[in-house]
Amino acid sequence: MAKRAPATRERLLQQGVALMSEEGLAGVTLGRMAERAGMSKSGVFAHFRSKDEVQIELLEHSARLAAPVVVEPALREPDGLPRLEALVRNWLGWARRAGLPGGCPVAAAMFELDDVEGPVRDRVVALEAGWRRLLRDLTGRAVALGHLRADLDADQFVWELCGIYLIHHADQRFLRHPDADARAAAAFRALVARSAPDLAGK
Amino acid sequence: MAKRAPATRERLLQQGVALMSEEGLAGVTLGRMAERAGMSKSGVFAHFRSKDEVQIELLEHSARLAAPVVVEPALREPDGLPRLEALVRNWLGWARRAGLPGGCPVAAAMFELDDVEGPVRDRVVALEAGWRRLLRDLTGRAVALGHLRADLDADQFVWELCGIYLIHHADQRFLRHPDADARAAAAFRALVARSAPDLAGK
Repeated sequence: MAKRAPATRERLLQQGVALMSEEGLAGVTLGRMAERAGMSKSGVFAHFRSKDEVQIELLEHSARLAAPVVVEPALREPDGLPRLEALVRNWLGWARRAGLPGGCPVAAAMFELDDVEGPVRDRVVALEAGWRRLLRDLTGRAVALGHLRADLDADQFVWELCGIYLIHHADQRFLRHPDADARAAAAFRALVARSAPDLAGK
Repeated sequence: MAKRAPATRERLLQQGVALMSEEGLAGVTLGRMAERAGMSKSGVFAHFRSKDEVQIELLEHSARLAAPVVVEPALREPDGLPRLEALVRNWLGWARRAGLPGGCPVAAAMFELDDVEGPVRDRVVALEAGWRRLLRDLTGRAVALGHLRADLDADQFVWELCGIYLIHHADQRFLRHPDADARAAAAFRALVARSAPDLAGK
């Protein structure tokens, strides 16, 4: 029974998420997991039935790592625009603050799995949809509270926000530009400014 | 000498670019190239000395494929904003129009190679820098001709434009949202609108 102990599984998930963060889903195989954990492949196989299951578990685990550094602190901020702004601040560069050695696994997977079918892709689609739903809800609250204009296209707002996230990721992690944070902040400020209520019309 | 004939090398590049477009750089190995071409690995090895060399050649080849569908038609448009707008129109979704079966190899590589060092990464950094230089030059021309405001932060403009490209890529190719083109067009229109000359002040 010892080989199925939660501690071992937890360690495999921790090490696997680090591997996925650095090398993408292609880097996560039962063989690589075993190598990192100093276990046999069959030892790893006792915890996960397939490569797909490993990858899906790791994606879920990375979402669990994001919650306390991205979502939970934002939900303690005042409702509306302050909460949305806090979420965006926490989201940009979250992987490093969550202790991952590489980048955001979902962002990478969106470019890695665009031409691949299967349950891993489906899981990433669902994670991204859930995330956009949260962004959409907080944007909707900012509209409802009069912090953003009543006629705002909230889906377009979220879409552009996701663009800021992706270019910030590429700029900070791949191009290693030192001004990525400042550029993202300026882009988000401009997006909020043009979504502001038309005070002159009140 | 026949095995080094330009025709074979050209065919290997064509098939390799298709493979890279669908599976990313991780999918491009001498073994996979050989399999697709129906050649032996040593046959492929006669054309490329290493996996790094293959990947770099394929990246260069994909840039050559982009030129006639993205850059050249835009350069025939009137100088300034019309040329920049044409370039952006041609850039969004270019891979499909260039005959690639998958996505943009450079966009994918920026998420695949963020934690990988070496000559392939360096080549992607250089390609991206060259591309941004072109966007920056055309933006600068639009400013010089008074199509965009004189005090525009052109680097910020290009940065946000690159964000629109990445989210459009993820939305169209990964999430398969049918409205990705419309969202990108709306985002670009908004970016141009807030970068327009302040006519009231003239």
